[in-house]
Amino acid sequence: MIYADNAATTKLCVEAYDSMKPYLHDQYGNASQPYSFSRPAKEALRSARETIAACIGATPDEIYFTSGGTESDNWVIKSSLFMPTKRDEVITSQIEHHAILNSCRTIRELGIKVRYLPVDNSGTVCPVSLENAISEHTGLVSIMFANNEIGTIEPIKKLAKVAHANGLVFHTDAVQAVGHIPIDVHALGVDLLSSSAHKFNGPKGIGFLYIKNGVNIHSYADGGSQEQKHRAGTENIASIVGMSSALKLNTQRMFEEEKKLRTLENILIRSLHESGLDFIRNGSENHLPGHVSLSFREADGEMLLHRLDLMGICISTGSACDSVNTQVSHVIKAVKVPDEYAEGTIRITFGADNTESDAVEIANAIKKVLL
Amino acid sequence: MIYADNAATTKLCVEAYDSMKPYLHDQYGNASQPYSFSRPAKEALRSARETIAACIGATPDEIYFTSGGTESDNWVIKSSLFMPTKRDEVITSQIEHHAILNSCRTIRELGIKVRYLPVDNSGTVCPVSLENAISEHTGLVSIMFANNEIGTIEPIKKLAKVAHANGLVFHTDAVQAVGHIPIDVHALGVDLLSSSAHKFNGPKGIGFLYIKNGVNIHSYADGGSQEQKHRAGTENIASIVGMSSALKLNTQRMFEEEKKLRTLENILIRSLHESGLDFIRNGSENHLPGHVSLSFREADGEMLLHRLDLMGICISTGSACDSVNTQVSHVIKAVKVPDEYAEGTIRITFGADNTESDAVEIANAIKKVLL
Repeated sequence: MIYADNAATTKLCVEAYDSMKPYLHDQYGNASQPYSFSRPAKEALRSARETIAACIGATPDEIYFTSGGTESDNWVIKSSLFMPTKRDEVITSQIEHHAILNSCRTIRELGIKVRYLPVDNSGTVCPVSLENAISEHTGLVSIMFANNEIGTIEPIKKLAKVAHANGLVFHTDAVQAVGHIPIDVHALGVDLLSSSAHKFNGPKGIGFLYIKNGVNIHSYADGGSQEQKHRAGTENIASIVGMSSALKLNTQRMFEEEKKLRTLENILIRSLHESGLDFIRNGSENHLPGHVSLSFREADGEMLLHRLDLMGICISTGSACDSVNTQVSHVIKAVKVPDEYAEGTIRITFGADNTESDAVEIANAIKKVLL
Repeated sequence: MIYADNAATTKLCVEAYDSMKPYLHDQYGNASQPYSFSRPAKEALRSARETIAACIGATPDEIYFTSGGTESDNWVIKSSLFMPTKRDEVITSQIEHHAILNSCRTIRELGIKVRYLPVDNSGTVCPVSLENAISEHTGLVSIMFANNEIGTIEPIKKLAKVAHANGLVFHTDAVQAVGHIPIDVHALGVDLLSSSAHKFNGPKGIGFLYIKNGVNIHSYADGGSQEQKHRAGTENIASIVGMSSALKLNTQRMFEEEKKLRTLENILIRSLHESGLDFIRNGSENHLPGHVSLSFREADGEMLLHRLDLMGICISTGSACDSVNTQVSHVIKAVKVPDEYAEGTIRITFGADNTESDAVEIANAIKKVLL
C-alpha cells in the first residue's frame, strides 16, 4: 500500500509510541493528585510541555493541552462570546477548516458577527483585505496557518501585524503546519495557535492551544483546575507525552524532510506534465512540503480516489477530515478553480514514510485511470 | 504500593491495552476517509459503539464519543445556551462535580439561570425537592448518578420521572458510576448520560455522551461531520476501542467485583471501629462499591494523606480530580459534616487490583497515624 494522505492523518512514529507505553502501563497516576505515585505523571507533563514549547518558540506556561485541533479551534472562536459587546465581531477567511467555520456558525446563532475574508487564486489572504475589513467592533482575527486542502501557507506575520496595529487578538489554526514548517510564535507575533498531534505523527485525540502570556481567553472545558484552570479534565499523559516526542522528532528532521518531500512533489508533477494530462495545480508557490492538490479537466475526483484505492493507493478528495460530502469544497470554490476542473480535484500529501518510487507509482496510476 | 484512589483514576486493564495496540500501530487510517485502508478503523469504531451501547442498554446510534467526562458534562450544560428563552433555566444539585458546577457558572455569565438543589446528610437529592424547584422556565435537569467524593448513588429513575412529568430533559453525570454499577439508560429513563473511560480501567482522554434518540442538543465541538455531525474531530480509534474493551470487561465482572469491594469496605470499617477512633462515614447506605469516605474528629485529612503516602498508600482528600485545594469541599459542606470532623476527611476507593490485605494495611496505617 502507498499511503499518500498525510494531511488527513499520519502514522504514529515508533519513538512516540515507545514514549507513551509507561503511561499506558504502570505510571497511571492522576497527575493532579498530591501523592508520590503521581510524581512521574506530573514530571512527564512538565517535560512534555517544555518540549512542545521549545518546538514553537513559546514558553511552557503558554501551552494548554486539548483533545485536538477541533477543540483548540472551538475554544478560540467560542471565547468570542465573552468579548465586550463593543468588540463582538470576528474576522476569519473563506477557506478555513470546518472546525473554524462551523464554530463561527454557532457563535453567529448566539449574536456574534463574523466576516469572511476572500482569498486570491492561490488561496492567499491579503493583509490589505484584513486591514479593510477591520471595524471598531472587531475583537478577534482568526486566519489559518496553512490550508488543509491546497497547502497554501498564509502570510501570518503580516496578518498578525495588521491585527495588532488595530489592537486585536490574532489566532491561527496551525493544525496542518505544526511539525512540518518552522514556526516561532513569538517571532510571528501570534497570540493564539491551534495544533493537533495526529497531523505530525503523534497520537489521535490530543493537541494543544498556544495562548500568549497576557492574552486572556475564557476557558472552554470547565471543571477541575488542570492547565492553569483553563482546560479542565484529567490529563491524558500518555498522549501528551506521545505528542511531544513526535513534535520533537519532526522538528529535528524538518529540513531534511522538506527537501525529500519537495523532491517527491516534483517527481509527481513532472511525470503528470509529461503525460500531457490537462490539469491545474492548486495552491501557492509557498505551500506545505509534500502537499499536492490537483484538478484534472473533465475528471471525477471521487472516481479517481476509488480507482487509485483499488491499486492500493490512499489519497484524498475534497476536504481531509470529511469525505462524505462529494460537492466541490468551499476551498476549491474560493480559489475559483474553473468548473470543468473543479470536480476533478484530488489531494496527494506525502509524509515521512513515502519514497521517490511512491511518487512515480502514483503518477503512473493516475495516468492509467485518466489517459 | 497500595493504590486505593480508584475514584480519581484507574489502571488501564491489560485487555484494553492489547485491544488498542493495532490502532496505535498499523491501523492508523482516518476513520472518516473513504478508501479501503480506513475500513478497519471504521469497523473498530462501529464495533466499539455497539459494545458500549450494549453495556448501558442503549442503541449504538445513541453513543457519541468525546474526550472524557468533562467534555460530556460541558457539552450538556452549555447546550442550554440554545434552549428557547422561555425555557432557559437549569436545575442541578449542590454536590455535582466541578465539570457541571463550573459549566453552570459559565452559562450564568451568559444569562442562563441555574438552581442548585440541596441534599440530605447522606448526599441524596430528594425527588420532591426537584419537583418543587421546577418552574415554567426550567428546560434542563442535571443530577449526578453517583457522587465522586462520598459515593452516594442518587435516585436517578425517580428524578428522571419528575423531570419528564414536567416535560424536561434529564441529564446525569455518570462518570463515577459507569462500569461499577448496573446502568440501563432506557429502563432508568435518562435522556443524556456522561461517562469517562479512565474511571473504569480504560484509557485517559476518552469518554462518551449518551444522547437518547429524539433528544436534540446542539453540538459542542463544531467542525467535521463525525459522530452524526454532533461531535467533530478525527476519531481517536485506539482510545475508543480501549474504552469499549474496558467497559465490556468491567460489566461482565461487575457482580463478583461488587461482592469483593463490599468485603474490603467492611474489613476497613470494622478494623477502624474496633480501634476506638472517632470518625463518621460519609455518604449513603446506597453507595458505590468500594467507596469509603471518612471524616476523623479533630484530624487533618491532608496530613493523613501525606503520612499514608510515606507508607506507600495512595488515597485522596477533598475532591478526586483536584487536590490542590485544601479547603473543606463543597460536598462535605453540603452534607453538613460537623466542623470538628470536616477537615479530617479522606476518601479510600478500592478497585480491581485491591485485596483484603490492602484493606487491613490501610486500616492499620490510619490507626498508626491517628492513635
